[in-house]
Amino acid sequence: MPRQAYVNGRYLPHGAASVHIEDRGYQFSDGVYEVVPVAAGILVDEEPHLDRLERSLRELRMAMPMSRAAIKLVSRELMRRNGLSNGFLYMQVTRGVAPRDHKFPKAARPALVMTTRQMRPASAEALNEGVAVMTVPDIRWKRPDIKSVSLLPNVLAKQEAVEAGCFEAWMVDAEGLVTEGTSTNAWIVTADGKLVTRDASHAILNGITRLALLKLAKAEGLDFEERAFSVDEALSAREAFLTSSSSFVMPVTRIDGKPIGNGHAGILTVKIRDSYMDYIRSLEGAA
Amino acid sequence: MPRQAYVNGRYLPHGAASVHIEDRGYQFSDGVYEVVPVAAGILVDEEPHLDRLERSLRELRMAMPMSRAAIKLVSRELMRRNGLSNGFLYMQVTRGVAPRDHKFPKAARPALVMTTRQMRPASAEALNEGVAVMTVPDIRWKRPDIKSVSLLPNVLAKQEAVEAGCFEAWMVDAEGLVTEGTSTNAWIVTADGKLVTRDASHAILNGITRLALLKLAKAEGLDFEERAFSVDEALSAREAFLTSSSSFVMPVTRIDGKPIGNGHAGILTVKIRDSYMDYIRSLEGAA
Repeated sequence: MPRQAYVNGRYLPHGAASVHIEDRGYQFSDGVYEVVPVAAGILVDEEPHLDRLERSLRELRMAMPMSRAAIKLVSRELMRRNGLSNGFLYMQVTRGVAPRDHKFPKAARPALVMTTRQMRPASAEALNEGVAVMTVPDIRWKRPDIKSVSLLPNVLAKQEAVEAGCFEAWMVDAEGLVTEGTSTNAWIVTADGKLVTRDASHAILNGITRLALLKLAKAEGLDFEERAFSVDEALSAREAFLTSSSSFVMPVTRIDGKPIGNGHAGILTVKIRDSYMDYIRSLEGAA
Repeated sequence: MPRQAYVNGRYLPHGAASVHIEDRGYQFSDGVYEVVPVAAGILVDEEPHLDRLERSLRELRMAMPMSRAAIKLVSRELMRRNGLSNGFLYMQVTRGVAPRDHKFPKAARPALVMTTRQMRPASAEALNEGVAVMTVPDIRWKRPDIKSVSLLPNVLAKQEAVEAGCFEAWMVDAEGLVTEGTSTNAWIVTADGKLVTRDASHAILNGITRLALLKLAKAEGLDFEERAFSVDEALSAREAFLTSSSSFVMPVTRIDGKPIGNGHAGILTVKIRDSYMDYIRSLEGAA
């Protein structure tokens, strides 16, 4: 059976799944999204993802397209139809369809689209080697904490990174401080072994994997700090890594062409990744 | 016959016109658009609009979806099918459909959507009364000169204006200088009768009506200057107005609740609007 997508109440073959040309997501990027990892059939951190979805919608004064319980049911039904065991669930909510006009439409109803994608976890080799990142100016709007589909600057920065042979671009604010990656959060380990990632504010998207790692770090008594760090500090860090719902914890072994630490995955990076993967497996056990 | 839309090679009933859920316009705001005014069946300043479309695409490294000649043919065919005489033509080009991934897809082909809308010109009364604007911080990304569909900040600012009883929001940069409106360019007339509008840079969208007005001002020997102005300067201006492809030249008679000039359309504003409307009528005559 071909892969299906959920579009506003209907399950459709993926290739035939469409939205109206006056959907405000298409004309105004007036919408938000979530990417929820799926491991062994389990939605990882579903509740925090739905919390964040509700927060993004609230910030944009959009209503939930259906109840949280209904979203969960649809998520599971789509996963079942698509036989999804490992990968992720993508959901997008827009302000709906209305004649093009910037201001909020009176009559439109929030629209919900969901898709799934199979994905293989990163290989042990890739994890040991880590990835390269480059730094670029952060030219985004001032509310990237809202997980909106207004992602054009992220697209351009990611493309620049890829063309430079990098996996990701770390964006840098006017003060020379790293905000985050285009679709990941940025972390370093300082010379004295402290985990550092930027504090959650309007300047970054507060990643769910980021939050899970902070919780794990606390539970394991690791030294950590939520604060901004400069590009220079990152370049001289002992280790670096990035987190996201699709990469989980990925070692960063080069920044702007310069090796970080010994040029391989750092010890603390591997330790916290292992903890995170154990955490995911614990969810499977509990399900 | 119901209104039609053009979607990637096909003319479809407007209500059935759709794009795939993995169109990058929908998932990443990875697309650009133009709104071309239509007066008495004539596309106003079609060439500058297509020039700007090509520029926006070039800045985002997207190809034209078809030749310029073909776009013109489709524009006219859609106008003919919809019997459009006064209103505007909307065209949107996105990077196309591809599995969701920030970086540019290798295989996607640029997608083109066109719609038309009838619109009545503003009444003489509305023009004499003018409109109110409010000022808001400009929180957009740093490349609003690219006419992308990454318009969420514009949507939020316009909504704020509407709820405050205003027609438009003028966005203000970190230095306290007005950049532009959410979908219009901002102008003032100084105490000594000089037209002032912000210089074209990465900070504003270089409006086609803005360009036409500058040309008219030059031809008529009016004193004008392209430079940034502060909110304070706007509040104490003798006149103010805004320009866009849908509003043409619209007097601004209140800013942040304060009347501008005598609270009615300014003399120079009316004069330049009349010149612009004459210019449009001259196009009709020439066609």
